Amino acid sequence: MTATHGSRKADRPKAKKAFGIGMLGYSFMGKAHSNAYVRMPFFFDPPPAIPRLVTICGRSRQKVREAAERYGYPRYETDWRKVVADPEVDVVDNGLPNDMHAAPCIEAAERGKSILCEKPLARNAKESETMLRAVTKAGVKNMVFYNYRFVPAIHLFRQLVAEGAVGKVRQFRAAYLQDWIVDPNFPLTWRFRKSSSGSGALGDIGSHVIDLGRFLVGEIESTCALTKTFMHERPIPGTSKKGRVDVDDAFISMVKFKGGAMGSIEASRVAAGRKNHARIEVHGSEGSLYFDLERLNELQLYSLRDPADRRGFRIISVTERMHPFMSNWWPPGHSIGWEHAMVNQVYHFFDALANDKKVEPWGATFHDGHRVDVILDAMLKSVRTERWESTS
Amino acid sequence: MTATHGSRKADRPKAKKAFGIGMLGYSFMGKAHSNAYVRMPFFFDPPPAIPRLVTICGRSRQKVREAAERYGYPRYETDWRKVVADPEVDVVDNGLPNDMHAAPCIEAAERGKSILCEKPLARNAKESETMLRAVTKAGVKNMVFYNYRFVPAIHLFRQLVAEGAVGKVRQFRAAYLQDWIVDPNFPLTWRFRKSSSGSGALGDIGSHVIDLGRFLVGEIESTCALTKTFMHERPIPGTSKKGRVDVDDAFISMVKFKGGAMGSIEASRVAAGRKNHARIEVHGSEGSLYFDLERLNELQLYSLRDPADRRGFRIISVTERMHPFMSNWWPPGHSIGWEHAMVNQVYHFFDALANDKKVEPWGATFHDGHRVDVILDAMLKSVRTERWESTS
Amino acid sequence: MTATHGSRKADRPKAKKAFGIGMLGYSFMGKAHSNAYVRMPFFFDPPPAIPRLVTICGRSRQKVREAAERYGYPRYETDWRKVVADPEVDVVDNGLPNDMHAAPCIEAAERGKSILCEKPLARNAKESETMLRAVTKAGVKNMVFYNYRFVPAIHLFRQLVAEGAVGKVRQFRAAYLQDWIVDPNFPLTWRFRKSSSGSGALGDIGSHVIDLGRFLVGEIESTCALTKTFMHERPIPGTSKKGRVDVDDAFISMVKFKGGAMGSIEASRVAAGRKNHARIEVHGSEGSLYFDLERLNELQLYSLRDPADRRGFRIISVTERMHPFMSNWWPPGHSIGWEHAMVNQVYHFFDALANDKKVEPWGATFHDGHRVDVILDAMLKSVRTERWESTS
Amino acid sequence: MTATHGSRKADRPKAKKAFGIGMLGYSFMGKAHSNAYVRMPFFFDPPPAIPRLVTICGRSRQKVREAAERYGYPRYETDWRKVVADPEVDVVDNGLPNDMHAAPCIEAAERGKSILCEKPLARNAKESETMLRAVTKAGVKNMVFYNYRFVPAIHLFRQLVAEGAVGKVRQFRAAYLQDWIVDPNFPLTWRFRKSSSGSGALGDIGSHVIDLGRFLVGEIESTCALTKTFMHERPIPGTSKKGRVDVDDAFISMVKFKGGAMGSIEASRVAAGRKNHARIEVHGSEGSLYFDLERLNELQLYSLRDPADRRGFRIISVTERMHPFMSNWWPPGHSIGWEHAMVNQVYHFFDALANDKKVEPWGATFHDGHRVDVILDAMLKSVRTERWESTS
Repeated sequence: MTATHGSRKADRPKAKKAFGIGMLGYSFMGKAHSNAYVRMPFFFDPPPAIPRLVTICGRSRQKVREAAERYGYPRYETDWRKVVADPEVDVVDNGLPNDMHAAPCIEAAERGKSILCEKPLARNAKESETMLRAVTKAGVKNMVFYNYRFVPAIHLFRQLVAEGAVGKVRQFRAAYLQDWIVDPNFPLTWRFRKSSSGSGALGDIGSHVIDLGRFLVGEIESTCALTKTFMHERPIPGTSKKGRVDVDDAFISMVKFKGGAMGSIEASRVAAGRKNHARIEVHGSEGSLYFDLERLNELQLYSLRDPADRRGFRIISVTERMHPFMSNWWPPGHSIGWEHAMVNQVYHFFDALANDKKVEPWGATFHDGHRVDVILDAMLKSVRTERWESTS
Repeated sequence: MTATHGSRKADRPKAKKAFGIGMLGYSFMGKAHSNAYVRMPFFFDPPPAIPRLVTICGRSRQKVREAAERYGYPRYETDWRKVVADPEVDVVDNGLPNDMHAAPCIEAAERGKSILCEKPLARNAKESETMLRAVTKAGVKNMVFYNYRFVPAIHLFRQLVAEGAVGKVRQFRAAYLQDWIVDPNFPLTWRFRKSSSGSGALGDIGSHVIDLGRFLVGEIESTCALTKTFMHERPIPGTSKKGRVDVDDAFISMVKFKGGAMGSIEASRVAAGRKNHARIEVHGSEGSLYFDLERLNELQLYSLRDPADRRGFRIISVTERMHPFMSNWWPPGHSIGWEHAMVNQVYHFFDALANDKKVEPWGATFHDGHRVDVILDAMLKSVRTERWESTS
Repeated sequence: MTATHGSRKADRPKAKKAFGIGMLGYSFMGKAHSNAYVRMPFFFDPPPAIPRLVTICGRSRQKVREAAERYGYPRYETDWRKVVADPEVDVVDNGLPNDMHAAPCIEAAERGKSILCEKPLARNAKESETMLRAVTKAGVKNMVFYNYRFVPAIHLFRQLVAEGAVGKVRQFRAAYLQDWIVDPNFPLTWRFRKSSSGSGALGDIGSHVIDLGRFLVGEIESTCALTKTFMHERPIPGTSKKGRVDVDDAFISMVKFKGGAMGSIEASRVAAGRKNHARIEVHGSEGSLYFDLERLNELQLYSLRDPADRRGFRIISVTERMHPFMSNWWPPGHSIGWEHAMVNQVYHFFDALANDKKVEPWGATFHDGHRVDVILDAMLKSVRTERWESTS
Repeated sequence: MTATHGSRKADRPKAKKAFGIGMLGYSFMGKAHSNAYVRMPFFFDPPPAIPRLVTICGRSRQKVREAAERYGYPRYETDWRKVVADPEVDVVDNGLPNDMHAAPCIEAAERGKSILCEKPLARNAKESETMLRAVTKAGVKNMVFYNYRFVPAIHLFRQLVAEGAVGKVRQFRAAYLQDWIVDPNFPLTWRFRKSSSGSGALGDIGSHVIDLGRFLVGEIESTCALTKTFMHERPIPGTSKKGRVDVDDAFISMVKFKGGAMGSIEASRVAAGRKNHARIEVHGSEGSLYFDLERLNELQLYSLRDPADRRGFRIISVTERMHPFMSNWWPPGHSIGWEHAMVNQVYHFFDALANDKKVEPWGATFHDGHRVDVILDAMLKSVRTERWESTS
């Protein structure tokens, strides 16, 4: 669209490169990703490229049509193969359930499309390895939606660790706590079946904090874990029956990092009162950092380099122009929300795409996604063996 | 836009009524309002109506052209009269500086346009009275961007007060604190000149908490205030000279509410460390409520009706589906940001517009905007007289 | 008492000077002060002097006898004159109701006793002026129990202001909130009668934050206030009747400091959910400080001198050895409670007494107590006149 | 001491039973325990019995003499055997280093003395088993200073769990974090040698949260742990040499409770910025509880039984008269500190002693102390075996 001034035609601004988006999935993630595509060029000035909505895909024809209307896709499909094959689609975004990650991503890779995929990358490491191999072979740009890497406070967290603000990292502690399934009558969706999800709290939200452990501290070399399912049956949607839950409601794990740090990582979807509380802390030889996803505009820093009588955890409002991504948003203190991280992430990907930059280390690639799956597998194995397992 | 399924044309959904938007101003508020128009139908399903971006207006031709491109306006102007006169424009949105509120709004009213105007409504009550008279005479829908009324936690705050959750309200306490001008070299923009702004912290941010006092507790009948300017000169942008600041950096006031409650209301733009901290509390005969804009997803409630040994301020995460507006956004705990209130507010206005509902009491009308201006005037008078002044 | 090692007599340590204490009052303050005398030499090593409990006085013979037994006074009285006249009494501690502050203090001064008195110093400035004159004439050491000056975090607060950590102070904001009389059936004790108390929330807790305003920022030169009584009758203890409350439940005030700062000071005893919440903040040209009495081991500091991308309110745990008074207590993080400030204060007084040091500026003298009363009077006058009043 | 009224002898109150105290150790714990004995009868009215200070013991003659003077012990010793044998000593309090717990406690038991011992009960479970056997055989009252059980908020925590306020407990999470040895030059005291301490952070502070796990949730049946020493050498006090640290700086563990709950328990003495931060949380089928030792006057409760739109973590100020032990202290909101828990605990023990009540379940007996040691041993074993270990 080109704006005109009164009756005169406006000078045409230099056209941004556009990339056609084919979106798989229209519910939570379909909505969140689509929003990110639409908003990115609105806020990032100039945008590195324009994500052009081409088509969206879902199983229910009626629902996907409504989604297309609402989010701004001119076309829709019920068969993902048509999306992946669509010549107007440059970027395939896979927001489908976990068991539908591999096939579309691999086919997209083979067709040379750039790929964005929801997390966890697959149901297990074996599956994600095939995906990693496909994108590597095809040489296509790829990214996994470990979106919390793009929360400005998390970005700043990593910058501070990297510049040595807390010295050598010794301890990592992460707990991702939610309570949306604490009600025993919450229905048995695909997220409660191992065949479709791979695991429960572990892969769903644990994967996020495992990814952040790797992002903020470094590679994990071994782990020992414990999982638990408190409610073994849940109502099957659309029936009066109950079905079996075969994934975990909560897990705890211990990890050893390659650099020598130790860590604890846990997650629960039955932690009453915690809505989307991912508490992440690092202790180093010179200070500590603390983050809580429910207060995502804040980062806490404690520095042993401050004068001794006035040290304290500083609650940094990560909303200033000099903070990561924030010059694109609002004035200081005008807080951003959960979805902004995804817009930042989409910016990052299109910057990499248009300007041939690397997605890593700030973005999670399929390599990172696969590594998280390897760690998840080791955790599940450790639950069975009741001992430490290597993650290499 | 109508989505199509493969090669087949999709069934056309029932067309929503569309209203053409003429936007005056393209910087902070122009961006924030435009974002709200674009996002509302994306998130509110179904939207009550579609805000259709028609044209945007600003003084700098180059900048307004870029803004038009970026935000999605097909046309732009440098003369607001053309926007107000534009037959495609149904709704005039006035995001210009305070001294440019009256003339465009009055002309828009005379042309029968619906009007949305930034706060404070005018530089003083006399000016806003002419505006109120114009919209009343014309019978056009009108709203002032006292957007914090549409923060879900503030909405819930009012609901709880209204249903008596804290009993009879006795005390109101509000402090809106920012620090963006604590740097003495922050330039002398229009916000520092009485002729363009009317007042300083008082009208800029104090107006918000005065409005919330009226919204949450009720009408204010008298006040006594104190203002202060700490830095009397600031650099004139684009020059090496300094110019005189003739508005306040901070103010404090006491107020009496019609219902018998007492209140303190303050604001500062030099409160180092406070970025966008509007702290609002109410004490009633049965409990208390507390809100802080820097943690806008949270509302705190204390109830004397809880069992005595387990009373405490509850930190309610106002992110559940049953909370105001939240079913349109994300799952629980997936926090929203500052701009979401504006999207909610735009929804409210278009619902009123399309379905002929009242804007008040949830939305602030020009009547409310004028009342705030009356109170602001009484505060400024009280600073001169050094005594209490009536606000009626 | 001298400890002995086995059967051998221990080497006698250098005897500390002892001062005999005559305590007036045995309830809340009698208990709190007596505790402070007993604990000071236990924790402060070496103590500057030993407060020796001599006698305690109260109206009820049975209760005062029990108190004497419990707190360790070898004698007790029901007539304060006997205490003041007692030759073993070096220090008179007046913990009686406000209307009983003047006479005993004046007589004690005339007898050359050192004097500690509860706050507010008197029911009004005229009364406290006579007290101030008496101690000045007699040249006796005197202190008022504005004990929050001796909370280590408040001590540090003042040190930081004094050393310029927040630059020039511009704004002071204090709200002292409690809710212990929110229940309309809370009985009509002496604190609800002007004749015995002078005022309500104003003198009871407002006096503390007025004192802290002077302590942290400097002298107050004028004020404008608003008071409110929400419950005009309360049950008379021991009867089935109700009596009239003629003091305030809550007040708000604005103040101007001599140095140019502006401030708001409020207090309420009906702020549901606030138990002993005294929120005190200062904004200066270089930073801010924040304190909350319900979390009295913490002080928050924001400094504009920190690097721009990592500024934030630091929550300082004021429990380190280098913090004021803390080397006498426990290891870092082992928090202290409300009464510790009083022990610190008693240490300060006995240090002044034994080593002939000045009580001011860290301790509040009768001069300070009188100044607070002058300000309280000006506030009450301002309520009547509905305008600003001088406090000089 | 009996108080007299004027010249008349006071009626003698009914004499409380007194128990003679023999205190082993005069530094941190000697001071803290002695303070508790002195203060208990001051605050608990009437006290169940009077702890009478008899004698105190320490290695340095000069220091123990000074301590005796200061704390109020009429005698002192340098040989613990004399204390244990002293016929005036009814209660032996063992505040010595861990390697000095067993012998004095066993001998005290054999002599029929009541015993209070610091935690952890011994350096390992084998050692504490001998102690447990001794007190059991002798039938003497015994308690371990797991003092946090007597923080009123922890007491309330257990009451709420017990009454089902959070339903069936599913998850326990505890992290006890300090930073006092983050400085590599902190000297090599007995706490860094396995021979004297048994373990590092594990036994020193981990033992507290393990005890609280058992106290709040129930018995632990297996565990898997990880320990880490970050600084392997520290300066030997009084020399210019460094010596080897052979205990842990930090540990992480996973535990399984008998009732089916899962838990994570960690501790660190190098968690920069955390001073005495023991974070303890429980998630149940109906709610959650949260406690932080640095804000020990607060308990947070989330209840699924609250109305859905106003659920939130309630910050309960555990300072009201109806809260555990608080009627003995100050008015609401007048916070208590770290040492108050010890006073409460001493009250509990003397109540058990004087009135022949059981120490358990509220107090930790040698049985509890031994159980903690068994769990600590299993954790250390698990570190070696790299697998889960039983704690039965």
